[in-house]
Formats: sequence, structure tokens, C-alpha cells
Amino acid sequence: MSDHLPDLFWPGDERAGGLMGSPALLEAMVRVEGAWLAALVAAGVAPPAAAAGLDRPHGLGALVGPDDVAPLASGAEAGGNPVIGLVALLRERAEARDADTARWLHRGLTSQDVLDTALLLCTRDAVAEVRGQLTAQVARLAELADEHTGTVMAGRTLTQHAVPFTFGLKAAGWLSGVLDADEALAALRWPVQLGGAAGTRAAWVELAADLPEPEGVAAALAADVAARLGLAAADPWHTTRTPITRVGDALVGCTDAWGRLANDVLTLSRPELGELSEGTGGGSSTMPHKANPVLSTLVRRAALTTPQLGATLHLAAAESVDERADGGWHAEWATLRDLARRTVVAAAHATDLLAGLRVHADRMRAHHDAAAADLHAEQRTMAGLAGRTPSAHYLGVSSRLVGATVARARQHLDHPTPLPHLEENR
Amino acid sequence: MSDHLPDLFWPGDERAGGLMGSPALLEAMVRVEGAWLAALVAAGVAPPAAAAGLDRPHGLGALVGPDDVAPLASGAEAGGNPVIGLVALLRERAEARDADTARWLHRGLTSQDVLDTALLLCTRDAVAEVRGQLTAQVARLAELADEHTGTVMAGRTLTQHAVPFTFGLKAAGWLSGVLDADEALAALRWPVQLGGAAGTRAAWVELAADLPEPEGVAAALAADVAARLGLAAADPWHTTRTPITRVGDALVGCTDAWGRLANDVLTLSRPELGELSEGTGGGSSTMPHKANPVLSTLVRRAALTTPQLGATLHLAAAESVDERADGGWHAEWATLRDLARRTVVAAAHATDLLAGLRVHADRMRAHHDAAAADLHAEQRTMAGLAGRTPSAHYLGVSSRLVGATVARARQHLDHPTPLPHLEENR
Amino acid sequence: MSDHLPDLFWPGDERAGGLMGSPALLEAMVRVEGAWLAALVAAGVAPPAAAAGLDRPHGLGALVGPDDVAPLASGAEAGGNPVIGLVALLRERAEARDADTARWLHRGLTSQDVLDTALLLCTRDAVAEVRGQLTAQVARLAELADEHTGTVMAGRTLTQHAVPFTFGLKAAGWLSGVLDADEALAALRWPVQLGGAAGTRAAWVELAADLPEPEGVAAALAADVAARLGLAAADPWHTTRTPITRVGDALVGCTDAWGRLANDVLTLSRPELGELSEGTGGGSSTMPHKANPVLSTLVRRAALTTPQLGATLHLAAAESVDERADGGWHAEWATLRDLARRTVVAAAHATDLLAGLRVHADRMRAHHDAAAADLHAEQRTMAGLAGRTPSAHYLGVSSRLVGATVARARQHLDHPTPLPHLEENR
Amino acid sequence: MSDHLPDLFWPGDERAGGLMGSPALLEAMVRVEGAWLAALVAAGVAPPAAAAGLDRPHGLGALVGPDDVAPLASGAEAGGNPVIGLVALLRERAEARDADTARWLHRGLTSQDVLDTALLLCTRDAVAEVRGQLTAQVARLAELADEHTGTVMAGRTLTQHAVPFTFGLKAAGWLSGVLDADEALAALRWPVQLGGAAGTRAAWVELAADLPEPEGVAAALAADVAARLGLAAADPWHTTRTPITRVGDALVGCTDAWGRLANDVLTLSRPELGELSEGTGGGSSTMPHKANPVLSTLVRRAALTTPQLGATLHLAAAESVDERADGGWHAEWATLRDLARRTVVAAAHATDLLAGLRVHADRMRAHHDAAAADLHAEQRTMAGLAGRTPSAHYLGVSSRLVGATVARARQHLDHPTPLPHLEENR
Repeated sequence: MSDHLPDLFWPGDERAGGLMGSPALLEAMVRVEGAWLAALVAAGVAPPAAAAGLDRPHGLGALVGPDDVAPLASGAEAGGNPVIGLVALLRERAEARDADTARWLHRGLTSQDVLDTALLLCTRDAVAEVRGQLTAQVARLAELADEHTGTVMAGRTLTQHAVPFTFGLKAAGWLSGVLDADEALAALRWPVQLGGAAGTRAAWVELAADLPEPEGVAAALAADVAARLGLAAADPWHTTRTPITRVGDALVGCTDAWGRLANDVLTLSRPELGELSEGTGGGSSTMPHKANPVLSTLVRRAALTTPQLGATLHLAAAESVDERADGGWHAEWATLRDLARRTVVAAAHATDLLAGLRVHADRMRAHHDAAAADLHAEQRTMAGLAGRTPSAHYLGVSSRLVGATVARARQHLDHPTPLPHLEENR
Repeated sequence: MSDHLPDLFWPGDERAGGLMGSPALLEAMVRVEGAWLAALVAAGVAPPAAAAGLDRPHGLGALVGPDDVAPLASGAEAGGNPVIGLVALLRERAEARDADTARWLHRGLTSQDVLDTALLLCTRDAVAEVRGQLTAQVARLAELADEHTGTVMAGRTLTQHAVPFTFGLKAAGWLSGVLDADEALAALRWPVQLGGAAGTRAAWVELAADLPEPEGVAAALAADVAARLGLAAADPWHTTRTPITRVGDALVGCTDAWGRLANDVLTLSRPELGELSEGTGGGSSTMPHKANPVLSTLVRRAALTTPQLGATLHLAAAESVDERADGGWHAEWATLRDLARRTVVAAAHATDLLAGLRVHADRMRAHHDAAAADLHAEQRTMAGLAGRTPSAHYLGVSSRLVGATVARARQHLDHPTPLPHLEENR
Repeated sequence: MSDHLPDLFWPGDERAGGLMGSPALLEAMVRVEGAWLAALVAAGVAPPAAAAGLDRPHGLGALVGPDDVAPLASGAEAGGNPVIGLVALLRERAEARDADTARWLHRGLTSQDVLDTALLLCTRDAVAEVRGQLTAQVARLAELADEHTGTVMAGRTLTQHAVPFTFGLKAAGWLSGVLDADEALAALRWPVQLGGAAGTRAAWVELAADLPEPEGVAAALAADVAARLGLAAADPWHTTRTPITRVGDALVGCTDAWGRLANDVLTLSRPELGELSEGTGGGSSTMPHKANPVLSTLVRRAALTTPQLGATLHLAAAESVDERADGGWHAEWATLRDLARRTVVAAAHATDLLAGLRVHADRMRAHHDAAAADLHAEQRTMAGLAGRTPSAHYLGVSSRLVGATVARARQHLDHPTPLPHLEENR
Repeated sequence: MSDHLPDLFWPGDERAGGLMGSPALLEAMVRVEGAWLAALVAAGVAPPAAAAGLDRPHGLGALVGPDDVAPLASGAEAGGNPVIGLVALLRERAEARDADTARWLHRGLTSQDVLDTALLLCTRDAVAEVRGQLTAQVARLAELADEHTGTVMAGRTLTQHAVPFTFGLKAAGWLSGVLDADEALAALRWPVQLGGAAGTRAAWVELAADLPEPEGVAAALAADVAARLGLAAADPWHTTRTPITRVGDALVGCTDAWGRLANDVLTLSRPELGELSEGTGGGSSTMPHKANPVLSTLVRRAALTTPQLGATLHLAAAESVDERADGGWHAEWATLRDLARRTVVAAAHATDLLAGLRVHADRMRAHHDAAAADLHAEQRTMAGLAGRTPSAHYLGVSSRLVGATVARARQHLDHPTPLPHLEENR
């Protein structure tokens, strides 16, 4: 299906391509319906004929396409979510050739089952994309840290000169943030949502009532659908929104890491500092000489907005009630979409930023040297305390710290946590 | 230009039509460029020939169309905003026939001038739409409050029965929130943004250097553009973002008011209460009997998300720096877009909700009567204190309070604050 | 009563003194109870003897003191707010000497009446303090802007050199933000909250049932209490929280303005820029040479936290329900307290920051001159376009813009909006 | 040291006792200084005599007390944090008897080392308290779920009757949220912060320059301090704030879980539903009959505020810059304090709420029976599809789902993740 649509309000948005777009959500919802129907048939709950619509080329997916997004979106208002209209549409289109498919489609599910599962499928794709970018960043940052272990610069705290520092250790600090971000993404779980109307799976048991052990059939159905979608089997979580808030927090953790490094680039590429610069600066509509640190600016932009999106996901979780909620749930979808897409875009920007980053070691050295008296003030105190002449250097264990973080990076690169099942899902 | 695109993640989004969509922003940016160039020519800064491109049918607007949104969006990343690419595109297309138009276009502006002004133009359209909905709501709520001045129900506080109440007073309470929301929208200002590269208008003075009183020419240019766009003349506000935060706060104030009333409808339409119901309930994908309070749910959804968007606008304002900011500004655009569109959608939902709202006075009365002993407990204390037998009624000044709010509504309806200049702008 | 308590977690907190502290809230609640009882007696609803407790030195205030804060705070949990315990305590203590005072105290009010009104009284004191600081800042900034109208510096956009600028115009930009902030505070309304159990004032009418025109008595009571407290008379707003969200938004607007200027100071006081510095830098626990821009840091800190507090107030408003809410209301108190205190503290910090700010015009000039080629790049384009030699200067209408903002400041200083009724309240 | 001070603005605050109070922070900072000095001596960096002040009864802690909080808090403003003043105070007081202690105190640390480590020590205590409460809740909820496996009630979705449900499954749903919350707390890491002025540990190497292998000494110092404090050894994380954001997210996850269950109690204890009630309702200041669901209200209150506090921690992390930040760091302390204390208070409230919760199975049954036709509408569709008569029951696998969650709870109770080292720390 076609990509997400152009967005003048969020430059770089197209970097996220179709991830978390409406067509992707539609496709994912259809996949969920297909997996469920296949499981119903496999379990003997639905008759073999119900699989006819699944067995055709492209299965249920052939029944709908990008042109259906608009009417489904409009229709979603009536029931409050897009699943109701989708089920009606699929049934209508399957009806003529595959009446049993039409008849059995969606039986036993509730809208939230389909939407939650599809949303996680889409989000997982976005997370996989982010993790790919993070891996590239880890490699690049390890390289930068390594290369600049000995690149001396002025360490700065509360904006002022502090003690000597190295660009290698700065890069290692950025790297540790990026590694932390990926660690959180890697730890995410991707549970299927399958509960039926109120999470009791009552319809399943009713449908399977004449089979042996209907409750066992229900368990098998849940496991089967999870396997088909490459998701984790799980009890219903309609009103326990941990899977959503955790992914939200982990995504915000990414922009935290990139925002932190973008701030350094923005600061250090000021002309009076000039210690770093972006590979390709951005132009101006009126000033011909300009080379703006645009990637850092765009990354910083994202980092200023995502924490509040993460907060909205928590609020939505806390505002759950009854067996399925009256607004909290609905507040999650676009919030998670925006959070995930912005993270994907910022990931790409951060990768490019790091790939093109130019390190002006001469300027670093010059500022360090010019400020040497201040930068070594602490050292003089320490040497006095130890009753000795100050050492020639005052970089402490900078190299060791760089080495430790680079080692963590190598471990990460050599033994990557598997990306979440992308291959088998597609 | 075409409408905003379908969004499966925010049911009802199409209610906002093209408001704050990328095509609308493109159109508004072109309007700003057109007004500026017209002012340059009128002031004698640019030669009359520069107006040639403006004088053709549809002026500059004829040079671009919806198909340009995608490439402009993609190109926006390079400079961090969509104006740079737009100016290049307009110049390129104007070049062949109207070389002077191409040559003079955008001269003296900076990207932020165009984008800020265009953003406010778009936002003002959204606010006008919201205010139209609010007026409808005021009328409907005044009607409801009036009609139900005597409709007795149980007053509830902290979820429990408190004292007797009336549905009229409840509707008046909703009404006061809606009136407050509109009052804040009506008080908004819509300043043009015109400062040039760093807000000094230096290019204008340079361009007008050979005219008498170049600084006076600069002042006239600013006033002329504001008049052409129906905006307020203003000194540059590149890093003083009050116009943005105020519109943000006022929009959030709208969803506050609707969220509050939606919560009442959600509560009172629970089957065990049954005192209110939506005109048309929403269906379910699996439960044939369902009539869900979908409009209230969708309104509540919006109200759970907008405060955090408003907070992001404040953060962006507080994070301004230098003469134009490095990310704070960029964080505003999509945030304001989402906030404005969600407010427009929630406005429409709230209007429909109120239009169709069914009031079950019999259920209200029944619950009131069944709880009479509790509801009159306070009255017995008061009567005891006053040394008298309790009065027949215990509704206090409910009717007066309803009357006062309805009078405020009538005042609002009879003397509306003018919608912001929609007529002259289009 | 004693001051707010020391807070190691928010350096500078003592700047807010007792404003919005628990003792101040206790005192304000007692004032509200006193005003109400006085009004009841004045209206002839309560007997003259009920005023006995009010007529003693210090009135009801004599009955409680700072030592009562702790038990009242502990007791507040049981009913969910501190008013219930306070009323019991006041009655218990009044009982022996002034039985009628004890008997009539609080009759006709609900907890929320007392707490909302007291909260606004406390908040108004905080706002008055902020406005005093803003006035000092306006005066100082007008001075700075005026003095430095001709102090040339490099204008910077997206962190990079843009066009020539002046420090006077930068100060004028800060000033416009500060003026906007005060404008919003000046526009706030301070309505009394008086509704009784569910906002119907039913108890009042019951108590006044044997007087002529009980409803008129009720109206007179509300007006009388408002007048006694120096607040605006108002219909009950138990679930229409506009007065709270507006004050929240206006307070956030203050930290927006100061955050924006603190960012400039933090940037321009970096040693490589050195164009500004704080009057007294902050020291370090380990580096003897350090002079950190501590005031800017603390101001920036505040500005990073307040937008989310403002968002919480909106959420609380949107989550209102019934005749008095089940948590939304309770979420407001500490949030508003923290927001107001942080604004007061940041106000004092910003005043000090501006008072001590050192402007290094020589460094500004040096950076400007060193970057002259870049800073005049736009000018060369413009001059070429106009077919002339570039002018000697490229500062546009900077001086005029400074003048306009300074004039706005003078207008503000000469015709201040009255502080909210502090005199008559104390 | 004395407890946190009474807070009229957040009823229940005293439940958190002294956790995260200023005295506790002071004590923790002193512990950190003590551990560091002990490590310096043990490593042979400082002379044995420097330990004299540590060896006295209560060590360094004897030098300061609660009365020092106020002056330290006031003094914190000057340097932007309370450590600078604390070090000066400790040195001053140690000077007379233990000059070497005074001389060596804090050498090699920076303020942020002490404050970050102390903050985590305090936060860990708060988390331990929360985890204790969660364990009690897990036990109680497992009991409730078990007991009510067969307690039939109406399942509700989007506020309306859906299908049959059981209170046991509802309790199991709450339980799964509580288990998720604890799981996240259990996974937290508690790293020591030890980096020196800019995170290079340069002072350590300088001080140890005459010992063999100074870098090895530095590594040993870090490990020793971590061991003394029961924290994890870690490389400096001055500008990589993952340890803070993760604890923030995990705490918000707790209030999410409790907010969700409080909403159910608030809804189901409405008089027209009456299916649940709190053990002891809260009274009113004016209505004698009232029994408000106060605990649920207070829990819900907390849940409406914590997500925005968590967002502030993320923003602060993303706004880090240089080697130590200029405001982002400072924004964390009070935010984390408020978040942690509110979580502790809400934990206690939730425990009490669950302990006292009364389940009115008769009302549940009555509502279920009255709505039987609607609640079984889906079943009729399913039975029709399966070509059979509807079964006698329609509760699906509710019992199995309850059983699975209870089993997870038993596993949790039988094999608790150790609380974070409380024993060895105190």
C-alpha cells in the first residue's frame, strides 16, 4: 500500500515512509483478521470453507486497498474505531465468492483485539527500523570514540570551562545513551491482544462448545494466532496497558539520547566555538552564507515533543475503566503513531548527523590551550593536597572510560538482540 | 486545494476537513509571499513589473498546487522548514514569464516570517470554525438549561448522592464552560510576523535606501502586509512566542469544557443511571445490542491529549534562544496543527452530542426520589439549625443561576464577538 | 504564621517565603470561614451572637495556628480535603466561649467553597509578588534596551551568524516577553467560590426561609463575602475550572519569558562568547575558578517544569464530572502551589539576573567585526537587487523597534494595572 | 532526622513519612561523602588520619542535623545545588578536631556525584516502600480474584453492558497491572554516580599519582564506594540520565495501575451501581449522610499528575548538554521527589482501598440478571453461527484467566525479587 502522506509541518516526516501510516494500519488489521480466521479453521471451530477467502492470492488483503482508507476513516467515527467498518467491508466483499469466509470473519473478536494487535504490529515495525538506525549509530559512535580517545578539548559544566576532556569521552557518553535506548527497545514485549467482547473469550467457548474441551480450544486459538503473527501469546490486556506505556517510554528514551547529543552539536557548532559541524549545513531563504545545523535542530525538535506524548500514553492507561475504556483507549492510537513516527524520523536524522559529523580537533585544542589555566585549577588544588607537582596531564581515566563504553558497543554489535521477528511476519 | 488525508488513528479527523492541512499551509504561505510582494511594489521598493506574477489570474497561487506538497515536504528537511523550497519553486516557475516577480519574491523576508504568518492564518481559520461550533453549542445549551430548569435530579459529588439538583443547572454549568472557552478564543490576537533575517528589517531599509525615509517605508510595508492579510500589525516576535502559546491555551480551554460535559454524559448514560443518552449510539463489531456513547468517548479522548500539546507549545516558547531558535520553533508547527485539528473535531463532536442529547427526566426523577432521604440530609440539618420545618423544596437558587447563565448566553448570541476577519481574508 | 519549610530539592525556594505554604492556606481558609460567618450574621441569617467569635481580637484566626497544620494535614486524608477537619477544629475551640459561633460556622458552605476561595486568595498573593518582580524587570529591561540601542553584536539564528544586531534589540525582545507575561497576569479574574453542597445554595435559602425574599438574601450573601475578601462575586464554578486553568496558563507564560532570556544568557556567557555574564557567578564544590551562570540555570530549570504543571491543571479541569469531581479537583491544589511558588522563585531569580547582568559590548563588537563578511552577506544580495552600493550600516529599524518596546514599557510603568487588591485584603 | 513536613495541599502526604524529604536527602548526601572518604583512606589516597571524623560515633552524620536543612537550603541557591554548602559546613565543623577529615572530605568528587547518588539512595528507599505495598496488594488481589472467580457481574465496555463477567476476573485484571508495576520496579538499576568535575575522574588519578597504577586505584575507588552504599558500580552518567528516567517511568507505571482500579471503584460505588464500596467512606463538611470513596479519589488524583512529572524527567534528560547540564539536571530533583512521594502515598492508599474493599455480589448479580438479554446478545449470535442452542453460561475462560493471573501472583509472592538492599544500607 502507499506511503504515509507528505507533511509540511514536520520536515523529515517522509523518512518514516509508510510506518504507522493509515494504510499500514489497515493492512495490519487485515492480517490480524486473517490470522484469526485461519486459527478458527485450524482449530475446527470454523468450517474449512471459511478459509476459502484466505487461500486466494494475497488472502484477505486482496479485498481491500489504499482506496479504502478514506471511507473507513470516515466511517470509524460512528463506532469510535475503524474495525467495525472494516469488518463490514470485508464481509461485504467476501460475500459473493466466499460466503463462509464472510460469515466467520471476526467471529469471537472485538474491535479492540484487532486494533491493539494491529497497532503493536505496526509499532514493532517502527521499532525495528529504529533499532536498525541505533545499530548504525552504535557502530559510528564507537568509531568516533575510539578515534578521538586522545582528542583533547575543554570540558564544560554549567556552560563554563571545567577540566580537560576528550572528544572521545564525549562520543562515548553519547554512545552510552544510545546503547541504553536500544537496550530498552530490545526488552519490549509484543503481546497479541485476544479477548473478545469483554476479555472473557466467551464467544470462543460458545463457538467451540461442541468440540472436546472448549476451554482448551480457546487456549490453542490464542497461541495459534500469536504464532501466526509472530507475537507473544498473552492473556487479554484490554485495560492493563503496560505493553503500550512501555513501548512509549522506550521510544521517548531514544529521543532523550539523541536530543542530548544534538544539544552538544548545536552548542559546539556555534561559530565562536566551531569544534563540531554538521556534514552539510542547511541553507536559508534569505542569507546566502548560512550553514545551519539542521539535523541537530530537527532532532532537538523531536526531543522537545515526545515526552509529553509518552505522558499521554500513561494518562490513557491510568484512565482505563470497566472492561474496555471510554476514551483512554482511543487517545492512544494517534499518540503512539506520532511518537513512533517521530522517533523513526529522529533516528534517521541522528544517524545522518553522526555519519557526517565533522570534528575540528584543532579548534578543540585551541580552546583547551587558551583556557588551560582555568581547566587545570582543580588539578592544582589536588596536587597541593597530595603534596606534589601537578602531573603533565589531567585527563584521569578518560581513555579507560572510552574503552569500556566501546567494549559495550562491540558486545552489542557482535551479539545483537534479534530484531523483533520481522522476517517471519512479512 | 485538496483536503487533509484520511486518518484511521483519529476517528472523526475528517471533520476538520482541510483546516491546518499541508495544502492549506502551502496556500497560506503563498498568500503571505503574495501580500509581501504586493506591498513591496506598492511602496515603490520593487518595480511595478514585479507585480506581473501577482496580477495574473489567481496570482502566485496559480504557480503551485496540491501536487507540490509532497516534493516541498521532502525538500523541507534540507533547510529545516518548507519555505526555502517554496521560494525556490515559485521563483523557478515565475522566471520564464515574470522575471521581475521571480527576482523580487520573498526579498526582505526570512522563512520564519512566512511560516509563522501562514501558520496563524491557518490557525485562525480553525479557530473560526471552532467558534462557529461554540455558538451553536451556546444556543443549544441555553435551550437545554431553560427547558430543564425544573427537571429535578440527584446532585452528585465525589460520585455520591449529595443534594437535589436540576438538569437545567447542569446544562448551565456546561454552558458556562463553553462560554468561557469562547471568550478566550475571542480575545486572541493574530499578529503578522515580519522581521527579516533576524528581526531587524535590515533588508527592507537597504532595499528602500534610495527612497525618502527608508525607515518609514519599512513601517508602511509592515502595516500594508498586515492589512492585506487581515492580521494585526506587529513588531517581530520570532522569539517571543506569546501569540502561539495563547492560542494553544485557548484551544485547550475548549476541550476542557467539552471533556467536562462528555464525562457527565458518559456517567449518566451508564445503563444503571440512564438519565442521559446520546442521540445515536455507536455499534460494536461483535455485540449486536450495543449503543455506545461514542461522541462523548471521542470528545473525552481529545481532552486527554490536548493539555500535553499545549504544554509542548509553552516548552517550545521557553526554549527559544538567539534571534531565531534551534528547535523550539520547529516543535511548534505540528503540535499546533494537531491541537487545532483535534479541537475542531471535538467541537463538531460536542455540537452533535448536544444536538442529539436525550434527557430522561423520568429516570432523573426516579433516582432523585429513591434517594430522597440522603439528598435531604443536609436540609434537615439546616432546618434544625434555623429551628424550622424543612421547606418543601431544596433547590436553592438553581433557577436563578440557570437564568444568569442563560442571560450570559443570550448576550453572547445577540452580540457576538466578530469571527476573526474571515470574510475579508478569502 | 511561619514560613514555608526549607527545600533542598529546589534551590531558591525560600524566595517564595510563605506564599502558598500550608500555613498560608490554613490562614486563608480561616479568613473565608470568617467572611462567610460575618456575612451570615450581617444578612440576619445567623443570630448576632454568632459573631462573637469573630469580634474577638484576630477573630477566628486566633483559634488556630501553625501547630495545627500537621494534625489538619494528617486528618485531611479521611475526607479527602483539609476543610472538614478545620471546621471541626474551629467548632471545638469556639464551643466553650462562643457556642453560637461554633454552631453557625461554615453553615451553608461545602469544603470546596472554602478551599477554592482560599486557594485563589493564596494564589493572588503569589501573583502580586510576581507582578512586583515583573515591574522591576520591565524597568530594568527598558533601561538596558535604551542604553544598548547602539551596542552592535552578531545576530544569530539557528545558532549561526545571521545579520548585524544590537543588544538593545535583544533586551527589547526579552522585554516584550516580560510585558506579555504581565499582561496575562493583569487580566486574571479572582472569583469567590460559594455554592454549597452541590452549587445550588440550597442551604442558604433554607436558612433564610423565614426572611423576606430568601433568594435575594442568598445573592446578597455571595456579594457580601466577595466584598469582604476583595474577590469578584461569581456564580459557583465547582466544575467549571476556568479560573484555575487561566491562572495556570498565565504563570507558565511568565516562566516562558524568563526561560527564553535565561537561554540567551547561558549561551552568551559561554567563555568562547563572553558577551554577557551574570553579576555574581556560582561556585563549584571542586573547581576553584568557576563562575557559573547559576541564576540563569535556575530560571531555565523552572521553565522546563512549569508547562507540564499547567497541563495537569487543564487535565484536572477536563476530568471534572458531576457536581463536584472525584480526583480532578484534588489534583489541582499541589499542582497550583508548585506552579505558583516556582514562578515566584523564578521571578526573583530573573530580577536578580537582570539587575546584575554585565554586558560586554567589546566582545559583542569583536565577534560582530570578525564575522562581518558573513553578517553582511544578505546585505550584499539586497544591495545588488536594488542596484546600489551597500549602505554603511545594516541594522534596519532596530532602534525604532527598541523605541517602540521601551515606549510600551513606559506606558506599563506609568499606568500600572492595579495589583489585585492586596491592600484591602490584608 | 525529622520527618517531612505537613502538607495541606496533598492529603495523605504524611504516608510517605520522611522518604525523599530534605532531611533524608541531607542524610544521604552525608552518607555519600562518608563512603567516599572511607574509600579514599582505604585506597591509601588519603591518609589514615582522614578517617578520624568517620570513626567517631555516627561518623560524619554526627556533624549535621535537621537544623542544618534550612541554612543549607537557603545557601543552595548561590551555587545552584546544596552540596557546595554542605561540604563547606562539614569541613568547618570537622576542622577543629579532625583537620585531616576536613581537608580530605569530598576531594575528587563534584556536586553532582554527591547529589545524584544521594538522590538514588533516597529514591531506592521510596521504591522499597512501594514494593512492600505492592506485595501486600498482590496478596490481597490474588485473594479477591480467587474468592470471586464465580461472582458474576455485568461486563461493561465503553460504559455500556457488554457480556457477562466476573468480579474475580476484574480483580485479576487489576492484579496483572499491579504485577506489571512491580516487575518494572524490580528491574531498576541503582548505579552510583562518581565522576569528578567533568566525569573523567582526573582528580582521583592526580591524587593517586604516586601510588602504583593510579588508574587501577581509581577503578577500585569507584567499586568500593558502590559497595559501601549498596549501589551498582557504574561509569559516570552525568549527562546520560537513563537511571533517572527509568525510575520515573516505573513509578508512573504504578499510579497507572492504581488509577485504573480506582476508576473502577469510583464507578462501581456510585449509588445506582453499588457493586463495590470502600471500607470506610469519607465524610463531608456539610452533608451528614455522605460516605465518599475517598481513597479511590486520592489515588485517581495522583494518577492524573504523575505522567506529566515523568515527562519532565525525560525532558530534563533530553536537555542535557556539555559535561554537566545547565538546568536540565536541576529540574530533576524536585520532580523525582514529588513523583516518588506521590507514588508512595498512592501505594498506601491503594493498599488500604483493597484491604477494605467491600464487594456487593448481590448487586452485581442483580444488575447482571436485569441486563441478561443484552449481556447475552453476542452469545445468541455465536450460537446461531455454530448452529446450536446457547450454552447455559457465557463466561468463557474467565476462571482460567483468573487462575493464570493468580498463579503469576503466587509465583511473585513465593519468589520475590529482593528489595533493593535495604538491609545492608541502613
